[in-house]
Amino acid sequence: MPGPLVECVPNISEGRRTDVIEAVAAAVRTTDGVRLLHVQSDPSHNRSVITFAGAPEAAGRTAVALAARAVELIDMRHHQGEHPRLGAVDVIPFVPIAATTMEACVALARRVGEELWATLRLPVYYYAEAATAPHRVRLPDIRKGEFEGLAEKMARPEWAPDVGEPRPHPTAGAVVVGARRPLIAYNINLDTTDVAVAKAIARTIRESSGGLPAVQAMGVTSATGLAQVSVNVLDATRTPLARVFDQVRQEAGRHGVGVVESEIVGLVPLDAVLDVARAHLQLRSFDRDQVLEARLME
Amino acid sequence: MPGPLVECVPNISEGRRTDVIEAVAAAVRTTDGVRLLHVQSDPSHNRSVITFAGAPEAAGRTAVALAARAVELIDMRHHQGEHPRLGAVDVIPFVPIAATTMEACVALARRVGEELWATLRLPVYYYAEAATAPHRVRLPDIRKGEFEGLAEKMARPEWAPDVGEPRPHPTAGAVVVGARRPLIAYNINLDTTDVAVAKAIARTIRESSGGLPAVQAMGVTSATGLAQVSVNVLDATRTPLARVFDQVRQEAGRHGVGVVESEIVGLVPLDAVLDVARAHLQLRSFDRDQVLEARLME
Repeated sequence: MPGPLVECVPNISEGRRTDVIEAVAAAVRTTDGVRLLHVQSDPSHNRSVITFAGAPEAAGRTAVALAARAVELIDMRHHQGEHPRLGAVDVIPFVPIAATTMEACVALARRVGEELWATLRLPVYYYAEAATAPHRVRLPDIRKGEFEGLAEKMARPEWAPDVGEPRPHPTAGAVVVGARRPLIAYNINLDTTDVAVAKAIARTIRESSGGLPAVQAMGVTSATGLAQVSVNVLDATRTPLARVFDQVRQEAGRHGVGVVESEIVGLVPLDAVLDVARAHLQLRSFDRDQVLEARLME
Repeated sequence: MPGPLVECVPNISEGRRTDVIEAVAAAVRTTDGVRLLHVQSDPSHNRSVITFAGAPEAAGRTAVALAARAVELIDMRHHQGEHPRLGAVDVIPFVPIAATTMEACVALARRVGEELWATLRLPVYYYAEAATAPHRVRLPDIRKGEFEGLAEKMARPEWAPDVGEPRPHPTAGAVVVGARRPLIAYNINLDTTDVAVAKAIARTIRESSGGLPAVQAMGVTSATGLAQVSVNVLDATRTPLARVFDQVRQEAGRHGVGVVESEIVGLVPLDAVLDVARAHLQLRSFDRDQVLEARLME
């Protein structure tokens, strides 16, 4: 796949009915010029994350086709799940990769937003880098009230949609479309079963508590029973993965606890991994063009 | 470039006449199915390293075309330079990348060797993974005596060429062809101008002095005047870059010296860089398929 690329990571409000998930993902499989990279479904969240990539124009076209299938097959009036959500196709982020700029992704998000309203009568909010106002930047703020509170929320002028009329689609709610940097899901397991330690560390490192920039963190129990600091790095150029790991290890040390291992969940951009090598090796002027395989990709 | 790939890194005995270097490199530029990645010339060595990649068949064809140009344009009877050498096209290593196996590179080296003799009457030694005897594995052993001593050397049964008659090509000498893992050129600068410290550290880390496996090292003065440990990592799966760096930093500490920075010279395989991240982050089951750009390359 040469040339400018975007990654698109639509989240749909279905994580249980595999036939529906497959039918929505098929909108990616059957479109030329894009590649389906990952599908991850969470039954308890009742939500699936579909990752694909392609040239901007093809990615935009595919996002609209995927949304059309989700609107057709998912009825939010009957949807239950742990994860907050506004609509059948809940959020459509475009992420710049390869030579693509953030500006190109914002422009793409806006074109897709217009088309989602024009073809599906789905009202659209723009978020993250595509937001039209500061109170619309963060997804949790836009999602607050969820599908069930959407009609009341949209009627308030400060929550009028960016595109479309100020009332929800009857079965599909609304969609949040935007542009953002790659988000890295990153978990660090501690050598303790005491989840309170993980929670305390999460509080010290997350941005909302005055910790590391662009870092969200919570303390949970991992599948194997160990205390886990579960992290989203929203912008690895502001807080590199190595700094997250180093600080968690340092904080754990204060609790007399060690780090067992860490884990990158799903996909990670090459530069975020190269940055770890740059930091560890104190590399001077190391460029991704020096990675043999990256050179071959050009 | 999808599918199995090989990297090919021919070294030619010309590092001064840019028209000759360009004419030899043009054999790569004008061949379909391969990509020229890097050309590095050293006038004092009077030698150039040309790096290209492609599917095995195309890479083999290109290597033969490049050798033909080098044989045509370089006359070893008039060659002088600091670097040891046997011939006009001195060595042609094939390196497996992407899905290619070492076995495929050995087979490719053998096919190319046969063709170099058949078309150019250039006698061939196989080395590294393609060697036919233990005393022919290491390049320095094969090169010993150099072009000037080649007629005498080839006449001895233990140094009969693997392909061709046991006398040098009159102007082009002989060629060494083989298969090897990617070699990483890696320099670490110390915060001292005392080159004796770099030399002492190099002695402790290199394999030939009982140090790290697959590591060659020497102490030199860098272009900026700092003492530098200059390293070749012949097999980063045996000694990862992070271990080289960590051990140099530790040894430097014993001399009361710090590390200023390190530098990867030229190209490096993705896995070698990912291994640094794996080590620093104590990553569990991190696969290169999780690198977004690597996924897109498939």
